[in-house]
Amino acid sequence: MANLILSTFDWVPEPPRGYVRDLRVRWALEEAGLPYEVRGVPFKERGPDHFAHQPFGQVPWITDGDISLFESGAILMHIASRSDVLMPNNERGRAEVLEWVFAALNSVEMASVPWSILAFSDENRESTAWQKLDGFLQLRLGHMEKVLADREWLAGEFSVADILMADVLRLVDRFDGLEEYPACQDYVLRATARPSFLKARADQIAHFAAAD
Amino acid sequence: MANLILSTFDWVPEPPRGYVRDLRVRWALEEAGLPYEVRGVPFKERGPDHFAHQPFGQVPWITDGDISLFESGAILMHIASRSDVLMPNNERGRAEVLEWVFAALNSVEMASVPWSILAFSDENRESTAWQKLDGFLQLRLGHMEKVLADREWLAGEFSVADILMADVLRLVDRFDGLEEYPACQDYVLRATARPSFLKARADQIAHFAAAD
Repeated sequence: MANLILSTFDWVPEPPRGYVRDLRVRWALEEAGLPYEVRGVPFKERGPDHFAHQPFGQVPWITDGDISLFESGAILMHIASRSDVLMPNNERGRAEVLEWVFAALNSVEMASVPWSILAFSDENRESTAWQKLDGFLQLRLGHMEKVLADREWLAGEFSVADILMADVLRLVDRFDGLEEYPACQDYVLRATARPSFLKARADQIAHFAAAD
Repeated sequence: MANLILSTFDWVPEPPRGYVRDLRVRWALEEAGLPYEVRGVPFKERGPDHFAHQPFGQVPWITDGDISLFESGAILMHIASRSDVLMPNNERGRAEVLEWVFAALNSVEMASVPWSILAFSDENRESTAWQKLDGFLQLRLGHMEKVLADREWLAGEFSVADILMADVLRLVDRFDGLEEYPACQDYVLRATARPSFLKARADQIAHFAAAD
């Protein structure tokens, strides 16, 4: 019996399907080969029980026995600690994965999320706000381009850090933001060609479609 | 002999002094009572050695024996693993700290950094970009206000998660962004009254001032 339970919304509108953050968790669980169950929680009415598990009213969270955990980064670190395939066994290798996990979220996604909020609301490309926040993202992508030109995965073998970084860059790619960054594009293609990603994405899309 | 070495810039202009991210690391090291050495790296010319340690050209990074680690979140998790006072010893307690470490960086700082970039460049408060990104931050602060109204620290005892969350909220407070969030303000006051924070901030300011 699976005791690992992944909670995500029971339904979301079309645009975010295939991009909701439970995908990272599904992907990691598929890579690790860990059994899990998916539970849908109401998208439209988020009650006290939701906020008890996820204080920002978002998804996903997981429960694993008496542990309940939110934040995709924290969940992926937890899953990695349960598996041999998502993080190296030696201290130096683990440190390298750890820094890239945080870099994906705090150096790249911190720049890509505000950028995508403005891109999604058709912000004028001449505005100061766009220039500032697009500039912020371009700087970070420029550095990632150099990093990824030299290596297949971020920290030796494929790891949780790649799940996070590829998922973050994938959203930039969706808004055509990787056109000038071929190494970043190749990295996203490489990561998203993995069977575990393809299954995770298909499962997420089917989960939301089932509630239409 | 200290073998833990913290690298930060040798100098920065006045405005960011007291807010550069090495402060989080100093604070954690002071709380943990771990000996360390601080090294200054050139602010004005960032060469290949800098990028080898920190691929985005930022600070801080630490070296601990043969481990070199960037990203303040990763560094703080590493320091916490070296100490008894920054993270509980049981699995459930550790999971709680882990989720709040990521929440500080990926749910709150992800909203506060773009907001502060626009605030710092005097973005028009009526613009769509400001409305979107200020709205993003207000949502996150509203949830944090409820969380902090009920507890002294995020995960039981004071932990690395509080160092990160308090340091993130402190920058919002600097731009008067916590006026409507008294529980967040009290939390920042509580955290920044700790002797380890006061020493860390004084040391950082003295470090940069010495190079003037």
